[in-house]
Amino acid sequence: MTNLDRRSLLAGTVAASGAALFGPIGTRRAAAAMPPAGTQNSGWYRYKVGSHEITVVTDGVNRFKFPDGFVANKTREEVNAGLAATFLQPAPDMIAVPYTPIVVNTGGKLVVMDTGTGEANLERSKGAAGQFHGNLKAAGIDRNQIDTVIISHFHGDHINGLLTADNKPSFPNAEILVPAAEWKYFMDDGEMSKQTTDRMKGVFAGLRRVFDALNRKVTPYEPDKELAPGITSVATYGHTPGHNSFIVASGNDKVFVQADVTNMPLFVRNPGWHLMFDQDPNMAEATRRKVYDMLASERMLVQGFHYPFPSLAHIEKTSTGYRETMVPWSPTL
Amino acid sequence: MTNLDRRSLLAGTVAASGAALFGPIGTRRAAAAMPPAGTQNSGWYRYKVGSHEITVVTDGVNRFKFPDGFVANKTREEVNAGLAATFLQPAPDMIAVPYTPIVVNTGGKLVVMDTGTGEANLERSKGAAGQFHGNLKAAGIDRNQIDTVIISHFHGDHINGLLTADNKPSFPNAEILVPAAEWKYFMDDGEMSKQTTDRMKGVFAGLRRVFDALNRKVTPYEPDKELAPGITSVATYGHTPGHNSFIVASGNDKVFVQADVTNMPLFVRNPGWHLMFDQDPNMAEATRRKVYDMLASERMLVQGFHYPFPSLAHIEKTSTGYRETMVPWSPTL
Repeated sequence: MTNLDRRSLLAGTVAASGAALFGPIGTRRAAAAMPPAGTQNSGWYRYKVGSHEITVVTDGVNRFKFPDGFVANKTREEVNAGLAATFLQPAPDMIAVPYTPIVVNTGGKLVVMDTGTGEANLERSKGAAGQFHGNLKAAGIDRNQIDTVIISHFHGDHINGLLTADNKPSFPNAEILVPAAEWKYFMDDGEMSKQTTDRMKGVFAGLRRVFDALNRKVTPYEPDKELAPGITSVATYGHTPGHNSFIVASGNDKVFVQADVTNMPLFVRNPGWHLMFDQDPNMAEATRRKVYDMLASERMLVQGFHYPFPSLAHIEKTSTGYRETMVPWSPTL
Repeated sequence: MTNLDRRSLLAGTVAASGAALFGPIGTRRAAAAMPPAGTQNSGWYRYKVGSHEITVVTDGVNRFKFPDGFVANKTREEVNAGLAATFLQPAPDMIAVPYTPIVVNTGGKLVVMDTGTGEANLERSKGAAGQFHGNLKAAGIDRNQIDTVIISHFHGDHINGLLTADNKPSFPNAEILVPAAEWKYFMDDGEMSKQTTDRMKGVFAGLRRVFDALNRKVTPYEPDKELAPGITSVATYGHTPGHNSFIVASGNDKVFVQADVTNMPLFVRNPGWHLMFDQDPNMAEATRRKVYDMLASERMLVQGFHYPFPSLAHIEKTSTGYRETMVPWSPTL
C-alpha cells in the first residue's frame, strides 16, 4: 500500500505490552452504524480588518475539462504539468475554479463585493456552485440589508449573482457600483458588434441580460476613489478593459481584494501564463506583476476571488514568480 | 497608505465617463447600519477517502508567548524570523497553535482520532480553544455514538478531550485505543519518579488524571495494526516514546494522519528544528524526515493535527526541507 516500510519508522525499541490484559480490540460497540452525513459545512468565514468585519462567502467551485487554449501561451501538457505541480489538478485535463465574493461591514455600510455565478448555476453544477445566496443566509446576512454592491468587472461569475434565480434584483435596496471604464466599453453596441468569438459575444450578451433586468440602474465609479468607508478602487486593467481591484483598510490593517488579477494560485506561481479569459493578456500580465511585487514587498494580505476558500493569503516572491501561503483559519474573531 | 502608485496600475487608456449621469455614489441607503456579527462559522469540514467520510473538527487555536527554548536548537531571534518567513507569527514572540481532531465514519464504525485540549480550556482561552465538543455537535455528530477513540500519544492536547468539563467520559460507549508503548512508558511510576522538569512532571500527572477518571479502561494497540476498518497504526516514535500516526485508506484513496510528526508548518519548512515538546529530538527529527520523504515521494495527503484548519495538505520536498500546500476547500462532498 505504501513504499514506506512502516517498521523502518520504529526508531525506538520500546517493547509492546499490555494488550492481552485488556482483551482484543473491537469488543465494544456503541450502537447501530451511523450513516454517512454526506453534507458539507456552510461556506462562510469571518475576519477583521481594523474595525471592519469581512465575511468571505463562497459561491462554490466549478469543475470542468479545460478547453484548448485555456492558457494561451502554454500547451495542454504544460498546463497539466503546472496543475499537478501546484496540487490543483482534480484529474488530468480538469480544473476546479472557486468563486469567492465577500461582504464588508464597515460599521455604517454593508457592502457586497462581486456576486458569484448566480443561483441558476446551482442546478447546472449539481450544487457545487451558485451557493453565494445560500451561504450568505447561513452567515446571517439578509440581502435586503445590503447598502452597496461593488462590481470589479463584467464577467458572469462576478455579476450573475446580482439577480435571483427568477431574474429579480438580489439586493433590492443596494446601490450597484460598476467600473466606469467597464461600463463605457461593454455597453457600447459598436464594441459588441466587433466581437468575433462565441465567448466574447456571450460576455456582451450576458452582461446586458443582467443590467437590463436592473433597468441599467448602476453607478459607475472611477479608480482611486473611496467607494465606501475604507474601500478604495484600484485600476487593474488587462483582464478586462475596466477591471478594478480594491484596498479595504481600517486602522492599521488592510487587505487587497484582487478580483481577477490572477485566477487560481496556478497563475500566482506562473505570472507569465496567459489565461484565455484575460482580454488583453500582455496588459494583464504587466498588471499582475506590478500588483504581486507590491503585495510581496509590503507583505499585504490578498483576498483572491478564485483562490480556495476562504481565499485569503500572504504572498512572497520566488525565483520564478510568486507563492501564496493561505492565512490560517481563526476559530474566533 | 501604500508604496504602490495606484495610477501606475492604470496600464490602459480607457477614459472615465458616465458617472455624472447617475449621480454621486452613496445616494441610496438600505436601512439602519447592521451591527457587526462578531461570530465565526463553526469549525468543521468534511471530505471523503474512498467510501470513508472524514469530518475534521477543530478544537481551536491557542495563542501564547513562546518560552525560551521553544525550539531547542534555535535562538529566539531565529524562531521569530522563521515564524515571520512562514507568515505564522501573530506578533513577535507569539505563536498560534491549532488543534485538529478528526472523526472517521468507516461505514460500520464511528472513530474519533485524538480529542483536543478539553472543554476546560474554553474558559482559559476565552473561547479560542477547547471547541472540539461544540464543533462536534455543530457537525451533527453525537458523542454517544462514537464506537472507537484512537489516541496518538499522551500529551494533554490530544487526550484531555476524553473527559467532559466535569470529568466524565466524553465518549461513554467507545473503546479507547492507546499506543501500547506509550501506555507502558507513561504509566510506569518509576519513569515518573525520574522526571526533573515541571513540564514533564505535568505530562505524567495530567495523563494520570485523565486515565484514572476513565478507570484506566483502555485498550493498548501495537504499530502496524488495523485498529478500525482501513485505519492502520504507524509507529512514529520520538515526539514521545510511543507516538503513533495512522494511515486511513479506502478504495484507492489514503491520507496520512500524522498527529505530531511535525507541529505547525513552521516545522515542515524546517524539519531540523527541535520543538521543545519533542521528547527525543533526534529520533523525532529522523522520524519526521522519513515520513515527509515518503509523503512527498508518494504525493500522499497529510492530515496535520497542528496544521491550520481544515489541516489537510499536500507535501513537496524543497532544497531546505518540505513545504505544504493546503488542499482547496470543497463546497460539496
